[in-house]
Amino acid sequence: METGLTAENRLIEIAECSLPGDGVTRFPFTDEHSRANHLIAKWMRQAGMEVWLDAAGTLIGRLAGQGARASQTFILGSHQDSVLNGGGFDGIMGVALACLAVEQAFAEGTEPDFSIEVHAYADEEGVRFPTALLGPRALVGSYDPQVFKMRDNDNVSLKDALAAFGGKPGAIHSLKRNPDDTLGYLEMHIEQGPVLERENLAVGVVTGICGIERNTLTLHGKTGHAGTVPMQGRRDALVAAARIIFEIQKEAKKLEDLRATTGTLSILPGAVNQIPEIVSFSLEIRSPDDAGRNGFRSFMIDYANSIAEEQGCRITVEQTYEQPAQDCDTRFRTLLEAASTSIQGRSISLPSGATHDASAMAALCPIGMLFVRCRDGVSHVPEEYASPEDMGQAIEIAARFLRTL
Amino acid sequence: METGLTAENRLIEIAECSLPGDGVTRFPFTDEHSRANHLIAKWMRQAGMEVWLDAAGTLIGRLAGQGARASQTFILGSHQDSVLNGGGFDGIMGVALACLAVEQAFAEGTEPDFSIEVHAYADEEGVRFPTALLGPRALVGSYDPQVFKMRDNDNVSLKDALAAFGGKPGAIHSLKRNPDDTLGYLEMHIEQGPVLERENLAVGVVTGICGIERNTLTLHGKTGHAGTVPMQGRRDALVAAARIIFEIQKEAKKLEDLRATTGTLSILPGAVNQIPEIVSFSLEIRSPDDAGRNGFRSFMIDYANSIAEEQGCRITVEQTYEQPAQDCDTRFRTLLEAASTSIQGRSISLPSGATHDASAMAALCPIGMLFVRCRDGVSHVPEEYASPEDMGQAIEIAARFLRTL
Repeated sequence: METGLTAENRLIEIAECSLPGDGVTRFPFTDEHSRANHLIAKWMRQAGMEVWLDAAGTLIGRLAGQGARASQTFILGSHQDSVLNGGGFDGIMGVALACLAVEQAFAEGTEPDFSIEVHAYADEEGVRFPTALLGPRALVGSYDPQVFKMRDNDNVSLKDALAAFGGKPGAIHSLKRNPDDTLGYLEMHIEQGPVLERENLAVGVVTGICGIERNTLTLHGKTGHAGTVPMQGRRDALVAAARIIFEIQKEAKKLEDLRATTGTLSILPGAVNQIPEIVSFSLEIRSPDDAGRNGFRSFMIDYANSIAEEQGCRITVEQTYEQPAQDCDTRFRTLLEAASTSIQGRSISLPSGATHDASAMAALCPIGMLFVRCRDGVSHVPEEYASPEDMGQAIEIAARFLRTL
Repeated sequence: METGLTAENRLIEIAECSLPGDGVTRFPFTDEHSRANHLIAKWMRQAGMEVWLDAAGTLIGRLAGQGARASQTFILGSHQDSVLNGGGFDGIMGVALACLAVEQAFAEGTEPDFSIEVHAYADEEGVRFPTALLGPRALVGSYDPQVFKMRDNDNVSLKDALAAFGGKPGAIHSLKRNPDDTLGYLEMHIEQGPVLERENLAVGVVTGICGIERNTLTLHGKTGHAGTVPMQGRRDALVAAARIIFEIQKEAKKLEDLRATTGTLSILPGAVNQIPEIVSFSLEIRSPDDAGRNGFRSFMIDYANSIAEEQGCRITVEQTYEQPAQDCDTRFRTLLEAASTSIQGRSISLPSGATHDASAMAALCPIGMLFVRCRDGVSHVPEEYASPEDMGQAIEIAARFLRTL
């Protein structure tokens, strides 16, 4: 609990490293980022770590191991940046809890026999530049050099922004880690959903990070005057879309851990007295099970085709994005569940529907994640909140996990 | 048939009175309007009429009656204006056919015993100014003087535009007609729908002009991250709206002559990875039967409320517009059906889903309308088309109607 209050105080202090306005606005390679890193470095040193900024702009704290596995490193990490007018927990909480977990795990001179690092990645949200995850991708060796040409709204390139911040764009290739020397990666993050709140539990163990796909479905019907074209024989693209959108929810509810959402829809011609001719809508599907996601997509496309035919419309489907699921490491899950049960009395497992730094780190090493209950399940808003009690439990679980690794 | 070809040639000629661009663009009180009126005046004089522009900008041709009912006037009319990049038939065809019907009905010295007028109204589409129907409303005595203050995109007021055109804004009150002296009103218009084409008939007799109402339904759900909020317990405003929109069509199909359309829909926040929180959509209902329209609205609002509750959403409904139905005169319908049967071999009756100048004239006198088959049921596009054969039949039916009045 005491560590939870420390976490809360640190998060309140670092939330001031923000552009003016509601909530927290902290983009990568800015003055706000620099001020935040100054505080994070203090948290790292407080946990006994040596601190430096790597070539990709990741702030790294390292506690060298003193035993047989000293050449091997376990990483805890998260990102320092926020969305525009975001909250004070998404991302940065994971950095704060990691520092405190390391401090707690290895207090009183009980140094680890392997090396431990805490990473504060510059950019996971991808708001300033239309890319993200440069820090973890540099460790994996999978970053795309093209991203350096990307420019922000002020026409500053990512390369120039990183160099001005103290990063070394030309040296990023040297950051690549050896998988054999990397024991694993643990990330703590607010849940961004309502499950833990409903279950009345502070911390949950993540089973894996959902695969994501985004599709655009477009129905082509026939417009006409809303007063003069009889209902019989209409080819109304919106009616067809509506039937499909409703069915998406109905079918998705039948499948555990699958999420399917239509968040955007556009209508042409889009007038109160015109029958809709062309309706496009998004279908985003997420699942920890890629086969289940593929099966759901196939089922819905078949269904959409049958509805389009019934309504006299033509349909096109375009997949605009796809990213496979990443499982959390089985051994890490077992250890985290055991720690969770011993601290909380019970353990709950749940998938992550959102992408995290861990998604990129999975290409380097086994990953594990803990979710912390967040009020009303919200994120990316100033109202984001996790209680000091819950954060304290997450620190204890992570510390116990680190000691049993 | 010969009159049909004359109508076609006249419509081709007057289509040149247009702004440059696709199709016909002819707004009221413009140079294009002035050039069109010059041609229409020739058509009227050709039918033996005296011609003048009234204070409201309506071009009027009058053939004085020579019998017992000389002080009484029957009016045929339609509008000269088009939408932006509209066609060469909506509106103006009714003026052309009226002139030819009068000419045909009273050729060879068979003058009517009542007076006949053909009216070419300035503005029915309401594109240049956000108002319409000034001409017929002036005859009814129901125009709103506030409309004179309305301004077009060039900041010209309706009052100044009308005055510069030769109208007399200050004298409009004097245009009011005496219902006792007004025998009735007949309007010919393209159908703007597919019924006559499906029935393979040139001309249909209109039963009445549908009442119209427009409503905005707004569903208030709860947003959240599309990846982190499980399907169970979602309060997705779009899913609720989709269920309602689909049901609108299903129920409307059960009711003869009722039309219900959702043409616009907006989503907040409106991102692929955000659950829709607020969804607003239009529900336009048209019916020749006001009680049927009211009943349908009540049914759908009850249904929408039940779906909103089922989906955990709140719903608000706002009626933004309502105009009651107007029946066509029973005697006119009987005479038009008889003329239609004798010319075409059979007669078909159908409601008008669209508003017309006749909608305003109904407050002054009994109204009648004829619809002419239009290719593909389209209007307000350059592709509008009615064949000379079909227009010729409409002229014959109208001429016969005038002779039997």
